[in-house]
Amino acid sequence: MIANATAAEVRTACRLGEHTGPTPDLASGFVQANLVVLPKDWAYDFLLFCQRNPKPCPLLEVCEVGSPHPQLCATNADLRTDLPQYCLWEQGVCSGEVTDITAHWRDDLVCFLIGCSFTFETALQLAGYPVRHIQETKNVPMYRTNRQCQSAGRFAGPLVVSMRPYRQAVVSDVARITAQYPLAHGAPLHWGTPGVLGIDDITTPDYGDAVVVDHDEVPVFWACGVTPQAALLQAKPPFAITHKPGHMFLTDWQDRDLLCETATVGTNAAGT
Amino acid sequence: MIANATAAEVRTACRLGEHTGPTPDLASGFVQANLVVLPKDWAYDFLLFCQRNPKPCPLLEVCEVGSPHPQLCATNADLRTDLPQYCLWEQGVCSGEVTDITAHWRDDLVCFLIGCSFTFETALQLAGYPVRHIQETKNVPMYRTNRQCQSAGRFAGPLVVSMRPYRQAVVSDVARITAQYPLAHGAPLHWGTPGVLGIDDITTPDYGDAVVVDHDEVPVFWACGVTPQAALLQAKPPFAITHKPGHMFLTDWQDRDLLCETATVGTNAAGT
Repeated sequence: MIANATAAEVRTACRLGEHTGPTPDLASGFVQANLVVLPKDWAYDFLLFCQRNPKPCPLLEVCEVGSPHPQLCATNADLRTDLPQYCLWEQGVCSGEVTDITAHWRDDLVCFLIGCSFTFETALQLAGYPVRHIQETKNVPMYRTNRQCQSAGRFAGPLVVSMRPYRQAVVSDVARITAQYPLAHGAPLHWGTPGVLGIDDITTPDYGDAVVVDHDEVPVFWACGVTPQAALLQAKPPFAITHKPGHMFLTDWQDRDLLCETATVGTNAAGT
Repeated sequence: MIANATAAEVRTACRLGEHTGPTPDLASGFVQANLVVLPKDWAYDFLLFCQRNPKPCPLLEVCEVGSPHPQLCATNADLRTDLPQYCLWEQGVCSGEVTDITAHWRDDLVCFLIGCSFTFETALQLAGYPVRHIQETKNVPMYRTNRQCQSAGRFAGPLVVSMRPYRQAVVSDVARITAQYPLAHGAPLHWGTPGVLGIDDITTPDYGDAVVVDHDEVPVFWACGVTPQAALLQAKPPFAITHKPGHMFLTDWQDRDLLCETATVGTNAAGT
């Protein structure tokens, strides 16, 4: 499985059990997505949670009740088989990891696909701003903050952020680039002072791995797609399924398809 | 009631029955919102309809089930009394207009507040681009198009667009300005050829009033907040309430609060 595979090729490899590993380096340029699967009677609350918290939970697509087939972001995909690995959740606790959820599928399940920071990381690298955890071959460091999400029905919980260090001089440009991708968490929420977010020690992330922050760099924090998993933990639905962290769904959309209108409107001279 | 009233003052005047007219000229600079009220068992479908059609249905806020009180966009507001006029809907037909819905309130109702083009019209005027229907003291012309919205459960229907004419030379600037307000319908969907949208005769809008399009101007089309009302017409829920067209809810948010991140990220030098 190589970087220049297409998204459809990665999905097929997952379906056949040929690929069960992480996806960050795969199908470069294609949009990757977080997956949350919930029973219908929890779907309204979660949909509203995403509406109220679009920075950590930017919805790419919500499937029909009982359908594992996206209609918009991928063709001929099956969310039961096309991710490398899944987490099964019972009462808010991850009770197991599997490579196929067909045996766990139910007619009342709703699939939510949520944007992912890989999209803006690609854009940053293409703009000449390397991403530290990629350089160090690690998972991105993530932190639970002292900021609470807007609650929605049974869903509530802390905002989780990811961190990438940059020199102060380039932070505004880094922020400008990622702001162009609101469906991939958009602009940073904060930079400079971890304590503002209730983060006491930048070297001990709550999820992922610590990375080096050089003396001339500031930590830059973005809303993170792990936030809905923190909300699951707190809401304790009887049953849920998510992707295994780092093992995402590959959509057929290209990263450029997620560019916001202010980044694209000038390029549309034809008027359609 | 004057243009430099605050949103709270307009809401109070509506509550006291002192103002029952249209709102376009009121509380200049404050964000106005479309209102859709539905029973809870229709709320998931409608929320998903908005998620799938963010251009015509940009959600500003969804209230708790049974609550007429927004938590985010207005303080001490009551959506049962604080709009000038409402339409009552039965089986998809507007069955009456009232100035207060307290008598029609039920514990299972959910209020949806949806962004409105008044926000970008203010921005266009401030940038030196007059808005034709405002110059002519008319309602904006609106057209049902040949494009279907993405359906969601029981909700489906045509995309409705509004039209404002501009000279070709300034259309790209007009588009750039409105693109900065994705929660107020954002960039135009099309300009130039009405037939592309299935509009045969620009002089006979389906809603609102016709306006003059000068020989050196092109019609510019934006997604329109009447789209959800067209979907209501088609879905025929047993009961619903909306604002009366042009008689909007005044939020406490300022138009600048709706600016997208790409328009604001450079102004945030402090990092918070």
